Amino acid sequence: MSHASDDTAVAAVDIGGTKTAAALVDAFGEVVARTSAPTPGRAGAQAILQTAADLVQRLRAREDAPTVAALGVGSAGVVDASTGRVLSATDVLAGWAGTDLRGELAARLGLPVTVVNDVHAHALGESRWGSGVGCETVLFLAVGTGIGASFIVDGRVLAGAHSVAGHAGHQPSPYAAKLACTCGGRGHLEAVASGPALVAEYRRRGGGPVEDLREVARRAGEGDPVAAGVVALGGAAVGSALGGLANLLDPHVIVVGGGVTGLGVPWWTDLREAFRADALPVLADVPVLESALGADAALVGAAGLAWELVA
Amino acid sequence: MSHASDDTAVAAVDIGGTKTAAALVDAFGEVVARTSAPTPGRAGAQAILQTAADLVQRLRAREDAPTVAALGVGSAGVVDASTGRVLSATDVLAGWAGTDLRGELAARLGLPVTVVNDVHAHALGESRWGSGVGCETVLFLAVGTGIGASFIVDGRVLAGAHSVAGHAGHQPSPYAAKLACTCGGRGHLEAVASGPALVAEYRRRGGGPVEDLREVARRAGEGDPVAAGVVALGGAAVGSALGGLANLLDPHVIVVGGGVTGLGVPWWTDLREAFRADALPVLADVPVLESALGADAALVGAAGLAWELVA
Repeated sequence: MSHASDDTAVAAVDIGGTKTAAALVDAFGEVVARTSAPTPGRAGAQAILQTAADLVQRLRAREDAPTVAALGVGSAGVVDASTGRVLSATDVLAGWAGTDLRGELAARLGLPVTVVNDVHAHALGESRWGSGVGCETVLFLAVGTGIGASFIVDGRVLAGAHSVAGHAGHQPSPYAAKLACTCGGRGHLEAVASGPALVAEYRRRGGGPVEDLREVARRAGEGDPVAAGVVALGGAAVGSALGGLANLLDPHVIVVGGGVTGLGVPWWTDLREAFRADALPVLADVPVLESALGADAALVGAAGLAWELVA
Repeated sequence: MSHASDDTAVAAVDIGGTKTAAALVDAFGEVVARTSAPTPGRAGAQAILQTAADLVQRLRAREDAPTVAALGVGSAGVVDASTGRVLSATDVLAGWAGTDLRGELAARLGLPVTVVNDVHAHALGESRWGSGVGCETVLFLAVGTGIGASFIVDGRVLAGAHSVAGHAGHQPSPYAAKLACTCGGRGHLEAVASGPALVAEYRRRGGGPVEDLREVARRAGEGDPVAAGVVALGGAAVGSALGGLANLLDPHVIVVGGGVTGLGVPWWTDLREAFRADALPVLADVPVLESALGADAALVGAAGLAWELVA
């Protein structure tokens, strides 16, 4: 909190499917204050917007709060950064598609606002203040409930023609056989290596009833061979895919984040081994790093964009 | 030849494993004169350089030749465009790795020289004057003896940290099982969908002795079911990979070139079908176009870079 009384900060909001987080962030990327609330995902866009705005106002209202100069927003869903609108979103955020995210929050808060997809925000955070600092290009992969990516070139997100760039979970994966994918396709990386996919695979292999990925990880740690095999599968599928992407993009660094990284050393070991098997020899030593900013990354990345509005 | 007497042109050279082509290209990307010679690949770098230089001098010596203001070179191998050096190359070009391609040709010809890998040159040609005209981002895939790619953003090649970006043939492919790949890896796209891979697959499936891919294509056209199956396999493997790449990069257009595209309609049909099966629904209609510039593409793309030296 040492910077909280400095004169200026930006606000950042990270709107996820279950939680909305907000923070004040200084010019060094340090979070100087934070708060959060459940995302009212079923209540519609106006409720989600109001929750985000209220969180920012709560931070601004603190006695020691710096002046807030701008707001950066990372949001789940496909976001058109140029218009500030949400183009599409999953059912977890009801009515979110079509929302004028930038305009609505600017009007509620009287601040200049910049918006970006949350995976891109995470990648921007790593690029500017995390594991990708100083790297001209950063390939970020988030492995969690879904699998998304972001390719940062010279500090900019490559958003694509329809703002959907980064859907790296929807690449054909030799590890996925013909498993059904959330996108309607088959055999994609996300269908084998996301958190829910690994839990499903554990059940499919007869590992028995299990509540969540954390429990699979715990069992793997206790010597359950089925659990260990599933963890290894997940790491290898991700590492192999990253090897192929490295061959295509030749990034200066690869950063991996998301909840599935919590599987720890065994997962990372298989990931790195598969990466080296599929990467070209000249790329075998490309750094593959863990996300340094953890849960704050998207906030910090959105804040970085907000600072660009201030200058 | 109608532009050949205009006052200024640039020269372009395309150094391939078997042939070196040279051309004079006007400011509209039109080839106004051309010539070629076998690449003396086994004779070493000096011989290759001299062949390229001689071709350019032959074009400049023509009576109706315009003034040549610069030279653009597309070369096989990994080329560092910033230093103008060849970083690595296959054995087909003996001693090519380490060559100061830019410096040597500049000294021999007295021209400003710019150099780039030949697949990137092809992509630049399509982006500037071919199937990608007017598109902010172009994903180009060359399917031939090998499989390479180039991703063009705002008219620039994304070359990568080691200048090896674009090795799209070395992505894991569900179609490739564990087939050995030219890179030393296994199960990559190139191992199943390149020209030599399709010929090998035809033999593996018991199609009988066959000389080259052209013969496989001919047999497929005559109703040989093994040949037809191999053509379909190649198209599907490429299309599926392109679907995954589209999901990652969301390019404005995809352009496919290279000798294997000569397999024609059946190959393209399976390619497009597989593309749509793996691309996200919002990307199903991304244009997947055939290279418009054919054999001239790399020359024309290298010429485009050379024109930037003139301005």
